[in-house]
Amino acid sequence: MTPRLAVVGVGLIGGSAGLAARGRGAAGHVVGVGPNRATLERAKERGAVDSFSTDLEGGVAGADLVLLAAPVPRILEQLRELAPLLKPGAVVTDAGSVKGEIARAGADALGPAFVPGHPMAGSERSGIDAANADLFDGATWALTPTPQSSPDAVETVRAFAAALGARPLMLDPDAHDRAVAVTSHLPHLLAYALAATAGRAAADGNPHLFDLAAGSFASGTRVAASSPDLWQGIALSNRDALLSALDACLGELGAMRAALEAGDADTLLAALRRGHEAKRDAPTR
Amino acid sequence: MTPRLAVVGVGLIGGSAGLAARGRGAAGHVVGVGPNRATLERAKERGAVDSFSTDLEGGVAGADLVLLAAPVPRILEQLRELAPLLKPGAVVTDAGSVKGEIARAGADALGPAFVPGHPMAGSERSGIDAANADLFDGATWALTPTPQSSPDAVETVRAFAAALGARPLMLDPDAHDRAVAVTSHLPHLLAYALAATAGRAAADGNPHLFDLAAGSFASGTRVAASSPDLWQGIALSNRDALLSALDACLGELGAMRAALEAGDADTLLAALRRGHEAKRDAPTR
Repeated sequence: MTPRLAVVGVGLIGGSAGLAARGRGAAGHVVGVGPNRATLERAKERGAVDSFSTDLEGGVAGADLVLLAAPVPRILEQLRELAPLLKPGAVVTDAGSVKGEIARAGADALGPAFVPGHPMAGSERSGIDAANADLFDGATWALTPTPQSSPDAVETVRAFAAALGARPLMLDPDAHDRAVAVTSHLPHLLAYALAATAGRAAADGNPHLFDLAAGSFASGTRVAASSPDLWQGIALSNRDALLSALDACLGELGAMRAALEAGDADTLLAALRRGHEAKRDAPTR
Repeated sequence: MTPRLAVVGVGLIGGSAGLAARGRGAAGHVVGVGPNRATLERAKERGAVDSFSTDLEGGVAGADLVLLAAPVPRILEQLRELAPLLKPGAVVTDAGSVKGEIARAGADALGPAFVPGHPMAGSERSGIDAANADLFDGATWALTPTPQSSPDAVETVRAFAAALGARPLMLDPDAHDRAVAVTSHLPHLLAYALAATAGRAAADGNPHLFDLAAGSFASGTRVAASSPDLWQGIALSNRDALLSALDACLGELGAMRAALEAGDADTLLAALRRGHEAKRDAPTR
C-alpha cells in the first residue's frame, strides 16, 4: 500500500487510477494535481482524489509515489521540474503512451527514482467523467525500467499496477515503442484517415454515404473520436517507430491496390489472407 | 406477407432473413436453397427455413419472392439461371454487397421482376450458426431499382425489408457502390492490412507485440476475422469505386506520413482534426 499517492493529470487515466487506488485500498491518500481547479473539484466529487492542488510543488510534497498522467509533451516537462520537489525515497512513474523519450528524460532528471510505465487501457472518451475504477482490470500495464531505475522503485510501481488490477509486464522502452506503434498508434492514424476519407466523400456529392455505414465503419473509425491534440503529441514522440509501422501498412495496402487494379484475384486473396491469418492467430487482446 | 419465400444461400444474411421472416410472419413458407445439405439441415434445425432444396430449380419453384444471399460472384451466375425457373409474377431480390454489376446483370436476365438490394447488416462472423432474427432490426436496407424494375416488384421488396425490421432506402446502384466502397469495403481492406502489419511485426522479433494491444487494435482489426474469399469477391466486383476510396485514404495517410517525417506538428494536427471532425459530425450509424 502506498501511503500517499500524487496523480498529476486527472483525466481518463489519472482519474481512473485514483478511483481504482482508493477503491482497492492501494493508496492511503490520493492527491490530484492539475492546472484546472474545476477538473480537480470534479475528480474529488467523483471520489478519484482525497485532496488536490493546482501546483506541482504543493501536490507532490510528501508523496511516496507520483503518477504522471498528463499528455506526453507535458510529462516531459514535468520530469524536469520534479527533482527538487520530491521527498527522499519518493518513486515516480508515468502513464505516457510512448516510452523511449520519456525513459531517457526521466533517467536524466530523476535517476533511480523513475520507473516509466504505460497502462494498456484507454478509451476514445477522455476526461475525468470517463474515468472508472475498473479501467485497468486485467489490462497489461507495461513497465519499462531504465538502466538507472532502482530495484525497489521498480517493485513499488509493479505492486501498485497489480494492486489496481492490471497485469504488469516488464520490457525494454524501445521494444515497447515499436510494439505500440503497430498496435495502438497506427490504428489511430488509420481511424482518422478513414473518417476523413468518408467526410470528404460525403461532402463531395454522396449524401447517402453515412446511411450505408454499418459495423465495419463504426469499428474502423471508433478511435477517431479521440483527441487530435493528444494523438499529435503521441505520434511525434514515437516518430521513427510509427513511420516504420505506417510504411509497413502502406506496403500491405499498396499490394492490395496493385492486385485490385490489375484484377489479380489470387494476389488480392493472398493479401487478405495474410491479414485474416494474423488476426486469427493473435491472442484475444 | 409473402406466401412463399425462397432464400438462396442460408449463411449469416440468408439464415437471418429466414429467421426474421418466419419470426415476424413476413412469409408463409420459407424454402432454403444451397449446395450443402448439412447447412440446409442446420438452417431447418435453427428455424430459419420450413423446407429446403439442394437445387435452384426445385427451391424456387412456386416462390413469390426469391432472395439471393450467396456471395456476389455466385449471385451473378444465379441471376442468369433463374429466368426459366420462376413462376409468373415472382419477384427476385438479392443481398449482395455490390449493386452496379448485379443491377445490370439482373435487369438483363429478369427485367421487371428484379429489384437489387443490400441490407446494411453483417458481422465478422459468418454462416448459419451466426444468423439471428434481429440482425436487420433498425438497419438500413438499401434498394437500388433498375430502370426495368416494376413498381409492384419494388413495393414487394420494400415491404419485405420493412417487415424484417429494416429501414428501406432507395438509391441509385452506382451511388450505393461509391458509398459502400468508403463505408464498408475500405474499412475491410484497412483491417486486413493492419492485422497483416501486426502479424509481420510480431514474427519479426517483437514478441510482446500482442501483449501491448488494447482497444484500438481490437476495433481496427475486428473485421479482419471476415472471410478473405468473400471480401476478395466483393472488392473485385466494386473495383473502380474501391480504388477511388482507397486512393483518397492513401492520400490522407500520405499527408500524415509527410507531416510526421518532417516533424510538422501543425500539418499533422490538421490531418488528425479532419478525421476527428468527420467522425464527430457523422450520424451515429
